Amino acid sequence: MAGLVDKIEINCDMGEGFGRWKMGPDEELIKYIDVANVACGFHAGDPSLMLKTVRMAKQHNVKVGAHPGLQDLFGFGRRRIEVDPEDMYASVLYQVGALKAFLEAEGVPLNHIKPHGELFFYMQRDAVIMDAVLRAAVVYKVPVYACKNEMQKEMCAKYGLPFQEELYVDIDYNAQGALVPVAKSKMATPEMIYSRVLACALKDERDHNEGGVLKVGFDGQPFSICIHSDMPTALQNAQAARKAVDEANAKMFSK
Amino acid sequence: MAGLVDKIEINCDMGEGFGRWKMGPDEELIKYIDVANVACGFHAGDPSLMLKTVRMAKQHNVKVGAHPGLQDLFGFGRRRIEVDPEDMYASVLYQVGALKAFLEAEGVPLNHIKPHGELFFYMQRDAVIMDAVLRAAVVYKVPVYACKNEMQKEMCAKYGLPFQEELYVDIDYNAQGALVPVAKSKMATPEMIYSRVLACALKDERDHNEGGVLKVGFDGQPFSICIHSDMPTALQNAQAARKAVDEANAKMFSK
Amino acid sequence: MAGLVDKIEINCDMGEGFGRWKMGPDEELIKYIDVANVACGFHAGDPSLMLKTVRMAKQHNVKVGAHPGLQDLFGFGRRRIEVDPEDMYASVLYQVGALKAFLEAEGVPLNHIKPHGELFFYMQRDAVIMDAVLRAAVVYKVPVYACKNEMQKEMCAKYGLPFQEELYVDIDYNAQGALVPVAKSKMATPEMIYSRVLACALKDERDHNEGGVLKVGFDGQPFSICIHSDMPTALQNAQAARKAVDEANAKMFSK
Amino acid sequence: MAGLVDKIEINCDMGEGFGRWKMGPDEELIKYIDVANVACGFHAGDPSLMLKTVRMAKQHNVKVGAHPGLQDLFGFGRRRIEVDPEDMYASVLYQVGALKAFLEAEGVPLNHIKPHGELFFYMQRDAVIMDAVLRAAVVYKVPVYACKNEMQKEMCAKYGLPFQEELYVDIDYNAQGALVPVAKSKMATPEMIYSRVLACALKDERDHNEGGVLKVGFDGQPFSICIHSDMPTALQNAQAARKAVDEANAKMFSK
Repeated sequence: MAGLVDKIEINCDMGEGFGRWKMGPDEELIKYIDVANVACGFHAGDPSLMLKTVRMAKQHNVKVGAHPGLQDLFGFGRRRIEVDPEDMYASVLYQVGALKAFLEAEGVPLNHIKPHGELFFYMQRDAVIMDAVLRAAVVYKVPVYACKNEMQKEMCAKYGLPFQEELYVDIDYNAQGALVPVAKSKMATPEMIYSRVLACALKDERDHNEGGVLKVGFDGQPFSICIHSDMPTALQNAQAARKAVDEANAKMFSK
Repeated sequence: MAGLVDKIEINCDMGEGFGRWKMGPDEELIKYIDVANVACGFHAGDPSLMLKTVRMAKQHNVKVGAHPGLQDLFGFGRRRIEVDPEDMYASVLYQVGALKAFLEAEGVPLNHIKPHGELFFYMQRDAVIMDAVLRAAVVYKVPVYACKNEMQKEMCAKYGLPFQEELYVDIDYNAQGALVPVAKSKMATPEMIYSRVLACALKDERDHNEGGVLKVGFDGQPFSICIHSDMPTALQNAQAARKAVDEANAKMFSK
Repeated sequence: MAGLVDKIEINCDMGEGFGRWKMGPDEELIKYIDVANVACGFHAGDPSLMLKTVRMAKQHNVKVGAHPGLQDLFGFGRRRIEVDPEDMYASVLYQVGALKAFLEAEGVPLNHIKPHGELFFYMQRDAVIMDAVLRAAVVYKVPVYACKNEMQKEMCAKYGLPFQEELYVDIDYNAQGALVPVAKSKMATPEMIYSRVLACALKDERDHNEGGVLKVGFDGQPFSICIHSDMPTALQNAQAARKAVDEANAKMFSK
Repeated sequence: MAGLVDKIEINCDMGEGFGRWKMGPDEELIKYIDVANVACGFHAGDPSLMLKTVRMAKQHNVKVGAHPGLQDLFGFGRRRIEVDPEDMYASVLYQVGALKAFLEAEGVPLNHIKPHGELFFYMQRDAVIMDAVLRAAVVYKVPVYACKNEMQKEMCAKYGLPFQEELYVDIDYNAQGALVPVAKSKMATPEMIYSRVLACALKDERDHNEGGVLKVGFDGQPFSICIHSDMPTALQNAQAARKAVDEANAKMFSK
């Protein structure tokens, strides 16, 4: 189905600067990824940067998804903000629509929607906010990327929306299998990232932050791996993940 | 052609509040107009207000166009800001795309693009900015509303874009036939508006701010009239314009 | 002590427009109040409006306090936003300092600090945020207005800060004596406001939203009454409160 | 006089990040400069960064001035924006007042006001805007840093304000002796900067962008040198300038 992966892919947040301010090394990272989540101006990003990023992705055959966030430039979309569900629906539509304009101008399809930072967590803990985000996705009929989440899976099914499961390898999971926010995670080394990707792909296992191991539950299905572009070792992380993904795909999904 | 008028119409800027702040009496005005220019969040408007305004227009069978402006909430998009042409192209795409999301959610077509305030004037005096706006319109294949403007007419033709000419009746024209910005215009009474509409429609004439009369040049063709929603007498102005437009249409464009 | 009242006073939020957008009828309200809480640009207000409001207050012999809020123009500072305490300290300092500039330019002293909307509630439920606000107040040695709050009273004492207790009469209190946010309150009529002021002043009693009556605890001491400037009947509310306050002051605090 | 230099000094813009975004290497640069111009939140900077920057300057015995700019985060305050003079007066007061709050909290005096980017140029070409900025400075009785400017010198005298003349060494001057904006200048090397400082100090000469040499006109008086913190070689530039300044001061202003 459109927007769903048929082999393991790497997605990466892109275009998270603002005006003269830069965030990650996008021009380098783009070479190692399959999918770019493009910031839409609310937590980061501006129209000119969005256009530039879409053009860069197109040039590197990288798929493009919308990366909407809470309206919080100062907090980079990582602070909790109480949002009315109708405001949230409107806010996600606005951001995705804005990105869609650049995609139409460049003849690139919208691949998916991936909520950013606190919106990602807000959606996972609050069904009404999840519903607001999914209703916005319904307009575009694209998957909403997220971690394993039964609530989301069921709600996507209700709306006839595909659900694309994601794996994070540069931040922590807790022992219950939930993703830990960036600020509370240990930073992973490229070596850890390489091992984690292979463990998830080949053994369906992921280490957690209390020292044990989780069953991931992908069961041999392909999935999408998120690499943060704003970490100090982002480029090395992406390179390590790329190597592991290519090896795993060769074993698991080559025809 | 799509987006062009086949009888005289009234367009009006809508959704120019922000958060808790209101601007015009939109709920009343909507009953007297044919086309709503919906603010896109840069000079005014926010996602929730855009959604509400699109729904209201749909309910009243009022067509919807995008009303992009300069990024200037404090100045309401009426101050001169120097914008790089590529930034302008991206900025207009962003705003129109954002509005398009609400239109797609509600199943309403995008009717046109109408630049706001200083962007309207900027575009008319600067060919590179005009070109940036038109390139954004090309993505959506809709007309860009504007006053009589030979440069715009030629550039639209080059891009295969329709050009919809507008008339203003609640602010002034100068003796050269150019529109005078709101801050430098005398406010029109509803009576003046009524007379002006009829004079333009039936006699192709418009009074100017030095006391004389201009040839408008519509030559019996239908046109679109803009009514400002933020003037103290906005509602009465719209009612007066509506009455005159209905009378003129009955004489000129009934079949 | 500077900033503390010696008779019953009325304070009112002022300057809560932004750019071209207006909020309350400030020019009328100013005639009926003793103290203006001037918005500082984060939830509402802009530099030009702040200057205008300070000049207007000076002309009417109305005292001026800072009205800092959360950085949330869209939500008018009434949404919950998680703020790091050090960011909060800096944010309050910034806003109060900005207002102080206009006061120094006009030769008007800073009377107090009154947090707005959600910041008001945030401070009352979170000791670390309260501490951040009070540390900012320490720089200016002015009282921080608030409802009855034992925590605040103790912390003010620790910092050697005066604490000025407030009464609200146009929104509800619950049965526990806590203020109810605007969105969840019934709107009071001017008549209710008149009666409430007198009941508080003369009988030390306030009705609550479950139909009963609270002991207010002012015990014959003067206090400050807050009137919201953004309610539809704001002007009538202020007039009713003024009448009641003048009557109560004549009985209680005339020498 | 307070705020005026008694030997050659180096000033540098600081705190020009925003939220998670960084600009120059402030923590390194601070070791090589005498004066920090702290961004006030309009073109860059946020309350938390302002507080951090003021504390860092205090720790390094670096003097602090306000660095107000046009309200333009996207354009980093370097785009032309038409501002009403009264709005400008209010906007500068607001920004300087905000910085003053952090200075008072830390017990550091306000050293000067140095307008940023386009506001710097706006003020130099438009007497009404210059007047607005100077009226704000009058409230704080501090010098407004600027390049040689007869208009400013006269207006400062009228207001009883000190005028501190500046020299730029990392961007160009034109043959008429006017400063060339960053975007139109050639980037200087640290070697060029070293030579320029010594040529200005010892020979009162500065090279211009048509290959010739200008008389600077300092005539043996001390002056302040501005180093941009946002250039790729900012740190080396500051080190080179420091070396030259120390040498010149030893020859010219040691007692």
